[in-house]
Amino acid sequence: MLNFEFYNPTKIVFGDDTIARLSDLVPADARVLVLFGGSSARKNGTLNEVTEALGSRTVHQFGGIEPNPSYETLMEAVTLVRNENLDFLLAVGGGSVIDGTKFVAAAVNFAGDPWEILLNHGTNVAGALPFGTVLTLPATGSEMNCGSVITRRETQAKLAFLSHHVFPQFSILDPTKTYTLPPRQIANGVVDAFVHIVEQYLTYPVGGRVQDRFAEGLLQTLIEVGPLALETPQDADARANLMWTATLALNGLIGAGVPQDWATHMIGHELTALHGIDHARTLAIVLPSLLNVQREQKRAKLLQYASRVWQLNEGDENERIDAAIRRTVQFFESLGIKTRLSDYDLGPDTIDKVVDQLIAHGMTALGEQKSITPEVSRTILEGAL
Amino acid sequence: MLNFEFYNPTKIVFGDDTIARLSDLVPADARVLVLFGGSSARKNGTLNEVTEALGSRTVHQFGGIEPNPSYETLMEAVTLVRNENLDFLLAVGGGSVIDGTKFVAAAVNFAGDPWEILLNHGTNVAGALPFGTVLTLPATGSEMNCGSVITRRETQAKLAFLSHHVFPQFSILDPTKTYTLPPRQIANGVVDAFVHIVEQYLTYPVGGRVQDRFAEGLLQTLIEVGPLALETPQDADARANLMWTATLALNGLIGAGVPQDWATHMIGHELTALHGIDHARTLAIVLPSLLNVQREQKRAKLLQYASRVWQLNEGDENERIDAAIRRTVQFFESLGIKTRLSDYDLGPDTIDKVVDQLIAHGMTALGEQKSITPEVSRTILEGAL
Repeated sequence: MLNFEFYNPTKIVFGDDTIARLSDLVPADARVLVLFGGSSARKNGTLNEVTEALGSRTVHQFGGIEPNPSYETLMEAVTLVRNENLDFLLAVGGGSVIDGTKFVAAAVNFAGDPWEILLNHGTNVAGALPFGTVLTLPATGSEMNCGSVITRRETQAKLAFLSHHVFPQFSILDPTKTYTLPPRQIANGVVDAFVHIVEQYLTYPVGGRVQDRFAEGLLQTLIEVGPLALETPQDADARANLMWTATLALNGLIGAGVPQDWATHMIGHELTALHGIDHARTLAIVLPSLLNVQREQKRAKLLQYASRVWQLNEGDENERIDAAIRRTVQFFESLGIKTRLSDYDLGPDTIDKVVDQLIAHGMTALGEQKSITPEVSRTILEGAL
Repeated sequence: MLNFEFYNPTKIVFGDDTIARLSDLVPADARVLVLFGGSSARKNGTLNEVTEALGSRTVHQFGGIEPNPSYETLMEAVTLVRNENLDFLLAVGGGSVIDGTKFVAAAVNFAGDPWEILLNHGTNVAGALPFGTVLTLPATGSEMNCGSVITRRETQAKLAFLSHHVFPQFSILDPTKTYTLPPRQIANGVVDAFVHIVEQYLTYPVGGRVQDRFAEGLLQTLIEVGPLALETPQDADARANLMWTATLALNGLIGAGVPQDWATHMIGHELTALHGIDHARTLAIVLPSLLNVQREQKRAKLLQYASRVWQLNEGDENERIDAAIRRTVQFFESLGIKTRLSDYDLGPDTIDKVVDQLIAHGMTALGEQKSITPEVSRTILEGAL
């Protein structure tokens, strides 16, 4: 096992009818900005419940945070917080709203141009406004970690930052709030969480027995509950397990003490930035080909994945690895997520552009062994045509 | 899944050569009390390393915290902290030292007799001195939770308290520090962690798929690494996995959103208080008989335990349950931990005394369904003769 640090002070309040808990989770004298995305938070009644729970506190609202939240939009929220002297943020939504709220929290009192936060990946964040979240979409894990990904529309740059100052103080996870989500978002959430786990699991063995078993347990749970969540939106068991699994997939626990990959995410980010493909779908395109191309470096863990997650124990090593990758693809496709560039009307000409962007963003030595050069990224993308 | 709250702000610093990190984890101007147990912390060099890492800070030492730490001893530490105006505690040891340090932290500024903290199970704790830990013995999980068990020698009462104020700020887990532990302590630690997991897992199903799989993963890891840790004390892989497993066994995660039992602990506490049997050994005595006696209430989870932890899938239900209990006993015995009262020279006459003490301490409706009355406790103890 590798040496590690693990720290995660976010309080999780999980279960039905927990939004009312905001009345004691948010300081009584807080001046609150509620941040949300589209109109669904308003339509499904969550925003009303939140407002009611906040009672007589001063509350402003900021809607319109888009998927892949943009610096340009979020800076409007920063201005609002500054102008109205607000001192507590509450994100109501999924990963994009929460990531955006983290940026706003760090930017409000940042000395200088807040874009510098992204350029320095958060190392220059010295503090942040306190904030909580009401999660409505299980997917990214942002509700229980200190990471955020922000896009600058102007330059198509999609960059991440990390800072201990932007852990949510609390996150309310009410699985019943996910019942009305469109199937597309549920499917995206399942794939997003699945690939988060794989990025921390499918590398090379370091004797992290606990981490491996936790990762395998989360993957098996997604394989079970993903289809159930799509077939029966009000399956309370499936929705609760999906929500908690997606949170645990990226709260730092399963990645502590083991190598991590993240190349699928880095390549996928460029596909989203260039072509606007949903984040989860870019992962579903890149991952299978990456596992195939990287099979030598990942051989031992791919065989473990085949056996423990998919119960594939027949055939020689390469057959088992092929079968595990095939099962992964079938799982994504069974959720309605297409896994080929051609499914998104993209052909060979897109590959040059993606590789150029990877180089432009310094993504020239990706993966757990820094062995995914731009040429390897090209091979991975060619395998995904 | 049941509604739950999960909150755990302790920072874990895990790995070889991490004690030096104290130099930045403890505030530079802290006036520190280092608390420890017997002479082993001094002999094995850990105390020296700690002192060196604390550098020029004002440091006092308080040794002699016993297994099952006593109120009487700990109040001496409270007096020392008050007299010397110390403001930061550092526990160096295992669960007893850490539990004791939590009590000292809560007692120093407590208004009134600190024994009241135990009588109120911590609900009356309004604050505590900050403290960290250097763990030398993987077992109790105290290094990453907010619970503590204290014994009053005078009355033989062994009581627990919980308070969010007594989460360690940090815990340093260096598996190499466990290489010199006596086999008896390693074996006790494996059984202690094992039973912690079982208390949160072997109840009745509520659809906590993630919690179940995490619990099963921890149990399987203990079954693998327990014997390795005893056979080869310097097996780095085994010691690291044992240490991290014991921490995760009782940091709140696997018990969040599922029913919990804890009857084995409550009955075991009385055996320790009356007869001085090691905590873990009392658990090994009580658990198998409890699982047998409670087999109807626990049937579904016992079958799951048989299948997923012990791969027992042959025979009818009762045969599989019998086999799973038998394997549990064999596992404990294989570590050198005896599982019968008679192995500790105790006979039927002890049972009345234990049951009387359970009644005296209000332990009259134990277990996840509050169905373990004193008469059921008697039956469990009779099954352990």
